[in-house]
Amino acid sequence: MMHQMIKLLDRVVGFKQAQAHCDIPCKIYDPSGALLAALSCVRMIDLIHEVGDGMSLSVSDVAKISRLVREKEKTCNDVKDEVRIIWGDYFKSAQFEQVEGMHAMVHDIMVQASKCKQGIDRADSEALVEKINLFAEAFWLTKGVSTYRAPCPYPPALETVYPDLMS
Amino acid sequence: MMHQMIKLLDRVVGFKQAQAHCDIPCKIYDPSGALLAALSCVRMIDLIHEVGDGMSLSVSDVAKISRLVREKEKTCNDVKDEVRIIWGDYFKSAQFEQVEGMHAMVHDIMVQASKCKQGIDRADSEALVEKINLFAEAFWLTKGVSTYRAPCPYPPALETVYPDLMS
Amino acid sequence: MMHQMIKLLDRVVGFKQAQAHCDIPCKIYDPSGALLAALSCVRMIDLIHEVGDGMSLSVSDVAKISRLVREKEKTCNDVKDEVRIIWGDYFKSAQFEQVEGMHAMVHDIMVQASKCKQGIDRADSEALVEKINLFAEAFWLTKGVSTYRAPCPYPPALETVYPDLMS
Amino acid sequence: MMHQMIKLLDRVVGFKQAQAHCDIPCKIYDPSGALLAALSCVRMIDLIHEVGDGMSLSVSDVAKISRLVREKEKTCNDVKDEVRIIWGDYFKSAQFEQVEGMHAMVHDIMVQASKCKQGIDRADSEALVEKINLFAEAFWLTKGVSTYRAPCPYPPALETVYPDLMS
Amino acid sequence: MMHQMIKLLDRVVGFKQAQAHCDIPCKIYDPSGALLAALSCVRMIDLIHEVGDGMSLSVSDVAKISRLVREKEKTCNDVKDEVRIIWGDYFKSAQFEQVEGMHAMVHDIMVQASKCKQGIDRADSEALVEKINLFAEAFWLTKGVSTYRAPCPYPPALETVYPDLMS
Amino acid sequence: MMHQMIKLLDRVVGFKQAQAHCDIPCKIYDPSGALLAALSCVRMIDLIHEVGDGMSLSVSDVAKISRLVREKEKTCNDVKDEVRIIWGDYFKSAQFEQVEGMHAMVHDIMVQASKCKQGIDRADSEALVEKINLFAEAFWLTKGVSTYRAPCPYPPALETVYPDLMS
Repeated sequence: MMHQMIKLLDRVVGFKQAQAHCDIPCKIYDPSGALLAALSCVRMIDLIHEVGDGMSLSVSDVAKISRLVREKEKTCNDVKDEVRIIWGDYFKSAQFEQVEGMHAMVHDIMVQASKCKQGIDRADSEALVEKINLFAEAFWLTKGVSTYRAPCPYPPALETVYPDLMS
Repeated sequence: MMHQMIKLLDRVVGFKQAQAHCDIPCKIYDPSGALLAALSCVRMIDLIHEVGDGMSLSVSDVAKISRLVREKEKTCNDVKDEVRIIWGDYFKSAQFEQVEGMHAMVHDIMVQASKCKQGIDRADSEALVEKINLFAEAFWLTKGVSTYRAPCPYPPALETVYPDLMS
Repeated sequence: MMHQMIKLLDRVVGFKQAQAHCDIPCKIYDPSGALLAALSCVRMIDLIHEVGDGMSLSVSDVAKISRLVREKEKTCNDVKDEVRIIWGDYFKSAQFEQVEGMHAMVHDIMVQASKCKQGIDRADSEALVEKINLFAEAFWLTKGVSTYRAPCPYPPALETVYPDLMS
Repeated sequence: MMHQMIKLLDRVVGFKQAQAHCDIPCKIYDPSGALLAALSCVRMIDLIHEVGDGMSLSVSDVAKISRLVREKEKTCNDVKDEVRIIWGDYFKSAQFEQVEGMHAMVHDIMVQASKCKQGIDRADSEALVEKINLFAEAFWLTKGVSTYRAPCPYPPALETVYPDLMS
Repeated sequence: MMHQMIKLLDRVVGFKQAQAHCDIPCKIYDPSGALLAALSCVRMIDLIHEVGDGMSLSVSDVAKISRLVREKEKTCNDVKDEVRIIWGDYFKSAQFEQVEGMHAMVHDIMVQASKCKQGIDRADSEALVEKINLFAEAFWLTKGVSTYRAPCPYPPALETVYPDLMS
Repeated sequence: MMHQMIKLLDRVVGFKQAQAHCDIPCKIYDPSGALLAALSCVRMIDLIHEVGDGMSLSVSDVAKISRLVREKEKTCNDVKDEVRIIWGDYFKSAQFEQVEGMHAMVHDIMVQASKCKQGIDRADSEALVEKINLFAEAFWLTKGVSTYRAPCPYPPALETVYPDLMS
């Protein structure tokens, strides 16, 4: 998908001025919130697995799992809300032309976030992070801001997309 | 109780114009939200029972139960809020005259919703649905709108009260 | 769009069994919440216009508008949440095949709900109700449940889609 | 109403042991939250009146009123929630026998709290405080705890019911 | 710490008029909400321990623990919010001069409340109540209101700080 | 303050291993949420000023201001929550040694965020952003991650602190 985007990027001319009047109303959109939530989801799943080893669970274990699950639910809901807001409020026809398949990408994120709510499979949450990475790259592409990938500076230290604002 | 209501219905004259000035402020009241919440409570209890069979529970099982319990709590709180709003904001003396024992009915719903929060007995949640059915029938009676009962078109497929708006 | 759907309906065979395994996890989905929220948005806009006549506003007027705006915001957010949940959790490839253009329909609802948040134009909120009506018809079509339209039994008495569960 | 209660108090024998098994599930109920919310409602109304003098309102004035109204809404909702919880979860038949007319008293509080949401009349909020005072006295009566009235130690310095726990 | 405070109290002159202009904006601050939340946290931990005895836990047990943990989380968050608001909005330089070490006291409460979220050790929650007791005494000292300690009139019947408003 | 920090940075030895055991429990802390909220607060204030010019305000103007104020309240509350969590959960004695005056810095942020809630002075919100910038620099310093400042890639385009993760 990123390959397609990069090709699109080469073709797009003058999209910077286009964005000026479709950013209304508040003009602050940032996928960092969705990314942070997705990374937190991975952490919650890791911490859930740290509690128990499949043996008999104590009251204290169950209490721990309960609160971790609660936080996991919240992280997934946050992912959904953050992505829905950017997609629903920021993406207009100009952006949809720049990024193919955005509707399906967003729906796919909703499905993946639900999977992460329903289970505790770490691979599901890693997939969620990567889907949000791609979403973030698509978003910054429409803004004309280049991005880079680096491990986030805290656990789970997964590769995360950041805007390159220094250059 | 419904029998009493139907008898009341026959006695009531001109209550349609009475309702006109007690519907203030927003005039939209609808027990469908409370019913949906009560039906969802039944579903959560069903899904909780599907997780485990009384044998030793795994971390994954506990995680599932935790999130189902969280949703169950929410459904019961929603039932309480929806019923409290209709009772507190819509029911005025004119409506209390039409439906006997409304205060006790509402208190009884609060008690039943608490029972559903405290345990996972399906019978408790079925009783909650039926109490909300009766509440919905009482509500629509004060509105002069006839109702019918049909299984809701999704699990748990329990008999649910709907306003008859077609005739 | 409804015309297309009805044509689709004729073509679809056996979708009732198809729905059995895509309703997971909770299987209760109902667009009535979104509809109620959209109708409430119309009401809030009506009540806002009732407060003032364009003349100088008093402290009391401003206080009234403030709380009505707050409720309007809530109704629009509820519309977005309810629709996003049904779209994200219930709609799978089987449903997308039954209803063309669902992604665009949902995005369009988000845009319309934002419009209703940003302003107080009654026409915008009426358009929102109709978009949710179409969404509800699409939803019930995938469920194999027929629908009818009737004025909602309270202000704003706009034409609203209901499932026909009596027949 | 308090007079009736005091008469009741004289008649009640042994209600302390009665309360032992109706306090389930959490046994912590305290009307101080409802009182604090009602007093805060009075304050919000006072602060709203401080903003404007009926003359033309500036953007800054409107911004101030908006946030005060938002807090006022919250205080009224808190009153409703706190009272509903004590009434719905704590009051059982034993308590209803001790305090006559509790259902009507609670409904009346809901109506009064709605009035305070709808307008900015200080008398309405003062009436709300007094209704919660009576509710608090009724509550502590069922607990066998005596109460006293004193001005709350902050604005609006209105007479407030406190349990007498020193003696 | 209380000893220091009492010494401070003797030294402080004229702090009543000082408080008049630092109470802005709303002037209602009351540590009773934080205390109630801390006491509720103790209760939740007690109820969690009542569920299980370390033996194999049933689905129903896990469901009960889940909802008690959810409430425990809420009580701890409420403690943090209530204390943060009083510290952040009410405490100004005048109050900081009256009570030494307030910053550290508040940070310590945050740490303790987190401990109570993370585990189910009753001693942790008892320590939280005592820390809030000291905070309440510090608060009332800055208000020039004397306090007393009495067991709260419901479980867990722990010593709790109340303002003495009768004298 | 940053000067002091940089001096501190030179003196600190081996703080990377120190952070390993004070990051518990979730280890994901990131001031980007607080920064985004503070920047959004500036935007809300800008948008509020765009609505009116001091002339007579229409119903539509008041409606717009109301919702912008509501969002402004939320951004300030988010700032407070995000900062409180990092300070309360992440900062332990090791971090306090690295950054002098952290308690006062956090309290000062609470006060500044309250100012931004109470009024619509742009300078207040700019000051809030800078205070969070300093907080973010202090935070990343304790993590051993270097930072840079760049205008945020959307309005209000104010200088914002970002971690430098590329090098």
